[in-house]
Amino acid sequence: MNRSIAKLGTTIFEVMSGLARETGAINLGQGFPDAQGPAELLDAAARALRDKSNQYPPMRGLPELRAAIAHYYAAQQGLTLADEEIVVTSGATEALAACIFALLNPGDEIIFVQPLYDAYVPLAELVGAVPKLVSLEPPHWRLPMAAIRAAVTSKTRVILLNSPHNPTGSMISATEFEMLAEICVANDIVLVCDEVWEAMVFDGTRHVSPLAIAALRDRAVKIGSAGKIFSVTGWKVGWLCAAPPLASMIARAHQFLTFTTPPALQWAVAEGLMLPPEWHKAHVQSHADGRARLEQGLRAAGYAVLSSSATWFLHVDLPGSGIHIPDGQFSDRSVREAGVVTIPFSAFYAQDPETRFVRFCFTKPEAMLDEALARLARFR
Amino acid sequence: MNRSIAKLGTTIFEVMSGLARETGAINLGQGFPDAQGPAELLDAAARALRDKSNQYPPMRGLPELRAAIAHYYAAQQGLTLADEEIVVTSGATEALAACIFALLNPGDEIIFVQPLYDAYVPLAELVGAVPKLVSLEPPHWRLPMAAIRAAVTSKTRVILLNSPHNPTGSMISATEFEMLAEICVANDIVLVCDEVWEAMVFDGTRHVSPLAIAALRDRAVKIGSAGKIFSVTGWKVGWLCAAPPLASMIARAHQFLTFTTPPALQWAVAEGLMLPPEWHKAHVQSHADGRARLEQGLRAAGYAVLSSSATWFLHVDLPGSGIHIPDGQFSDRSVREAGVVTIPFSAFYAQDPETRFVRFCFTKPEAMLDEALARLARFR
Ligand SMILES: CSCCC(=O)C(=O)O
Ligand SMILES: CSCCC(=O)C(=O)O
Repeated sequence: MNRSIAKLGTTIFEVMSGLARETGAINLGQGFPDAQGPAELLDAAARALRDKSNQYPPMRGLPELRAAIAHYYAAQQGLTLADEEIVVTSGATEALAACIFALLNPGDEIIFVQPLYDAYVPLAELVGAVPKLVSLEPPHWRLPMAAIRAAVTSKTRVILLNSPHNPTGSMISATEFEMLAEICVANDIVLVCDEVWEAMVFDGTRHVSPLAIAALRDRAVKIGSAGKIFSVTGWKVGWLCAAPPLASMIARAHQFLTFTTPPALQWAVAEGLMLPPEWHKAHVQSHADGRARLEQGLRAAGYAVLSSSATWFLHVDLPGSGIHIPDGQFSDRSVREAGVVTIPFSAFYAQDPETRFVRFCFTKPEAMLDEALARLARFR
Repeated sequence: MNRSIAKLGTTIFEVMSGLARETGAINLGQGFPDAQGPAELLDAAARALRDKSNQYPPMRGLPELRAAIAHYYAAQQGLTLADEEIVVTSGATEALAACIFALLNPGDEIIFVQPLYDAYVPLAELVGAVPKLVSLEPPHWRLPMAAIRAAVTSKTRVILLNSPHNPTGSMISATEFEMLAEICVANDIVLVCDEVWEAMVFDGTRHVSPLAIAALRDRAVKIGSAGKIFSVTGWKVGWLCAAPPLASMIARAHQFLTFTTPPALQWAVAEGLMLPPEWHKAHVQSHADGRARLEQGLRAAGYAVLSSSATWFLHVDLPGSGIHIPDGQFSDRSVREAGVVTIPFSAFYAQDPETRFVRFCFTKPEAMLDEALARLARFR
């Protein structure tokens, strides 16, 4: 058995969703909307199943989807992307795996920022790379630039970032990317940015991709996710964008992980990405009500909600809420005693976990949020 | 850049399908039917898109699909599989990747049998495992048991087999699996069997899975593919079956490669696997006509077609057909001069390639086969 796999447990998201299925608790854990998905996309996928090929599409993705991805990023983020800079993957997790496998040799170092998605570190360890961890500091969760600089060695090949950031909702600014560019250029480092939450940004904040920074244009990889943009997390259609040499190298890893991605879903995502900006604006807005409702409800129940600009999550400061138990214990008890599933922040750490914060997903129907809030108010 | 990725080219199947797209040549290369797929499955998927959740399904697959896989294998192969012995993956390639990543440590050895699918060796090298290659011998392509025995060392952890075998259409018998069982038990080796062609078996031959061999029941992994069973190669729904401890270990690798697989396609495959045995028999039979047509046509044009029991492929012996150029050159010329795409056998070798054989896919409409045959007759 592989040693880095053998020491793993099951991902927290699966464990907590499994608990919700078993106990019937309200699931504010794993990030998914409790909704069917936009009719435009479901119809497009159903049509494509009948009218288009169900056989192997091109390994890098349907040309029409790659063109739609370029169109969408031009409209939303002012990026210019050529066809050969885009590789469609079976979800953003597969894109991450392909990047990590393609860019690292055994003994190479990769810098990760905690809290982080629990796939990052195991994927690096699988190819024998050495994870170097730095952490965001609560309550503002800004990028620890000095710690990143200190973590760079002659062996550092990749810095992997996540912006907008899960679970904190913080975002990396253009100024921060400029500072990172200096580090990356000086040390020949590739910056991989997990941007799956790029569309789920609230309160007028603007998402910045490292591909928008001139000095990073040829050394950054941007990872995106149709599941998050369109609220269909099960579809597992993702992609990566990077300068042609980087994209080619990562595509070679991709070809032996899944080879390709279901064409009907690719067609539907292509149609979705071509929808007008107003559609996308309205779709983001459709999540904003739940966000406000959960925030107000938690505050009214005496929970200290931290500020956040993006994602489908809000997080609560337990001691700030007068709750003096660690996050894991809170999450356990909230399932068993309140019937509400949450995700403890400590699950987002590979070392030195923060245990003072708990994450709540707000993309749920009003009635479900209200019931969860009532239970959480009684419970505390 | 990762050294084992950097040295890779693009998979032959993508290269040849790309050539077909560019030149308009008839594509008898990559294995896919030139057909829409069974109406039952397309309808089921379209229904599921509207009526079922499009959000993250359980990481190991929908319970209904896992039950349907167990049902199908009980009916077709007399296997008894429990729920926790089945993990749904995003295609068989992802299942292979998860197996290789979960079962091998750097320096461990894995035995492969050539000719082979070009993903196998790179996946092993990615985790620092050492591929040991043995080869089937033409024209009968039987398993080289002595060579396998000789290749086993104290470092051997996995033997990876493919039965029914792509590209030769040969199959491993129960007696051969019994002999392999002795080797595996004596040396604590896991046998991974890529059985994606298990349903595409002709002429009354019967497929045997290593899971049917008592001594292998706890140390074999069976890999299956809905794309091949149902002629929807783009769907990328696959799975692996193994005793619970093995399945759990491999699921831990799977969770960080793609995490899960689109639920609408999982529902449709579950419905398909529950169709009665007659449906499945008729579906296999629907491929038999094209197989006979291609075989007769190739023979009539003077090509020496070797015998084969399974898969969507036939292969031709070039020198036996009086054609004295290497397979790669034949395939190049057949695209450019005849307008027919084929796959040279040498692409299935990581070392010491056979260069005397060329593979043709027969799952195409009659008119397309006839036109390809006319071109191939003129060309030689
Ligand atoms: C693959 S599930 C985990 C990712 C996510 O959406 C979450 O953070 O809940
Ligand atoms: C992923 S395409 C290759 C597999 C296959 O079907 C083939 O051998 O043509």
